[in-house]
Amino acid sequence: MIQIPDFSDVLEAHDRIAPQIHRTPVFTSESIDRMTGAYLFFKCENFQKVGAFKFRGACNAVFSLSEEDAKRGVATHSSGNHAAALALAARIRGVPAYIVMPRTAPEIKKKAVAGYGGLITFCEPTLSARESTLAEVVARTGAAEIHPYDNFYVIAGQGTAARELAEDAGPLDIILAPVGGGGLLSGTSISIKHLLPECRVIAAEPAGADDAFRSFYAGKIFPSENPRTIADGLLTSLSERTFTIIRKNVDAIVTVSEEKIVEAMRMIWERMKIIIEPSSAVPLGAILEGKVDVKGKKTGIILSGGNLDLGKLPW
Amino acid sequence: MIQIPDFSDVLEAHDRIAPQIHRTPVFTSESIDRMTGAYLFFKCENFQKVGAFKFRGACNAVFSLSEEDAKRGVATHSSGNHAAALALAARIRGVPAYIVMPRTAPEIKKKAVAGYGGLITFCEPTLSARESTLAEVVARTGAAEIHPYDNFYVIAGQGTAARELAEDAGPLDIILAPVGGGGLLSGTSISIKHLLPECRVIAAEPAGADDAFRSFYAGKIFPSENPRTIADGLLTSLSERTFTIIRKNVDAIVTVSEEKIVEAMRMIWERMKIIIEPSSAVPLGAILEGKVDVKGKKTGIILSGGNLDLGKLPW
Repeated sequence: MIQIPDFSDVLEAHDRIAPQIHRTPVFTSESIDRMTGAYLFFKCENFQKVGAFKFRGACNAVFSLSEEDAKRGVATHSSGNHAAALALAARIRGVPAYIVMPRTAPEIKKKAVAGYGGLITFCEPTLSARESTLAEVVARTGAAEIHPYDNFYVIAGQGTAARELAEDAGPLDIILAPVGGGGLLSGTSISIKHLLPECRVIAAEPAGADDAFRSFYAGKIFPSENPRTIADGLLTSLSERTFTIIRKNVDAIVTVSEEKIVEAMRMIWERMKIIIEPSSAVPLGAILEGKVDVKGKKTGIILSGGNLDLGKLPW
Repeated sequence: MIQIPDFSDVLEAHDRIAPQIHRTPVFTSESIDRMTGAYLFFKCENFQKVGAFKFRGACNAVFSLSEEDAKRGVATHSSGNHAAALALAARIRGVPAYIVMPRTAPEIKKKAVAGYGGLITFCEPTLSARESTLAEVVARTGAAEIHPYDNFYVIAGQGTAARELAEDAGPLDIILAPVGGGGLLSGTSISIKHLLPECRVIAAEPAGADDAFRSFYAGKIFPSENPRTIADGLLTSLSERTFTIIRKNVDAIVTVSEEKIVEAMRMIWERMKIIIEPSSAVPLGAILEGKVDVKGKKTGIILSGGNLDLGKLPW
């Protein structure tokens, strides 16, 4: 039986992590509202610690462990924001974080994880190498594995962002979040369906990595195969847990072209003067592509993060 | 006799423009504090309307005009943020803005001014052509010329940013602002010397455009000659008015290398996830270059704007 968090778990998570996280601001943009005809409320998780919403979930998972378990540390395999988030959350709690990373991961990501005190074990860049290396690390250290999204506490933690957005923006007609493995979307949907039952929860996914879209409408999980998208935070597949939550709570999933993802990203940079990573631009991309009707609607958008190589921009 | 605003003029300006401007947020950065040993408070005028503090001064100048004068419109020659700011302020008041721009100005700037409803007259790209074209426009229309910085109301308006920073950050030991023509620096110094008499007011200027530095320490104005810097908002020379204010209120002017300007700009983009233009990076560049001792000091920094061509980054 898969454990599914409900809104009370989000509240518990919020109390637990509030001293550690930033309560990120909600930004609006007159010019983007004019262009889209909507009233958009952007939840700026690019300003979260480690530059991404992932810190909320990682922090909740680390601080949910018993003293006994925590002191053996935490472990994960990741080359992205979750690795940095877990390393920082563990450092704050004063316990080790063992991070398995492919040896081919970008220098900038290795440095970020090391900078937060993560203990890195490199492996070959295949999923099986990552999993077997992680299993070895866990066997050797007794660390608790914290999956990036297929984890009760991680999902509850991610739900805290949408709760803050609902509090700060007031009633919303629509909320949009990107979907990769479904951790953010799951947490978002749990919070919103509790707080704003009339609000439609819509996920936006790159057309080049549309496994959640296909899974949602087929009613069974299709794993992500050879995903190709600039939105490198959204390459992963749903788990049984996130799929269960998403089927129950999410109203629609729409896909977005690479062109519109890049256009939306640049629009947010130019108009709002904030730096977001490509994954964060997928929801606005869906609006620009006409996939979501937001005319006259109060629409929340979760900007998931702001980590990217500033030396390699997609324009 | 040159008219010099005092703090009561800043207060009047603030009351006048408050309904039109954004009260921009003050950001902090744990990582940049750690790197510099200071407690830095960044006033985010990159989030101001038109993407720069210039909107404050332009707005105050436009809304200070009598009905009679206002309806003939306002005029300026500028290829930068002041042109866009004046156009928007005039549009809000419902009067025409005549903007003289060199025909060689970047497309992006022409479009910005036109987008805010500015009526553009193109001229040859020389100072004398700009001045003579502006004189013709003023003679023809009866519009009020609003200089980008050598203007009582513009300076008073620019002072409102530092007032907000002092209110939001509390007592500061040091405040840093970039200096070009001196409008922002003048307004900043008027507000800070009134509100926080113990606070040191320090200006940062690109070494490649160091006319304010040389003027300040020589005690007479050296015009800017062949300035070369990436900080394209800081190419202009002081006026008698701004020089008078700066000599009275400013404690020091320091110069910054191009390398440190770019390093500071990238640091703010990477660590704070916000977009600033090169001119905004000059104060942090001064700190990185060791020109200002901020160790343990509460230090305010005015981030002057966020307008630049995202297709041409300096790294």
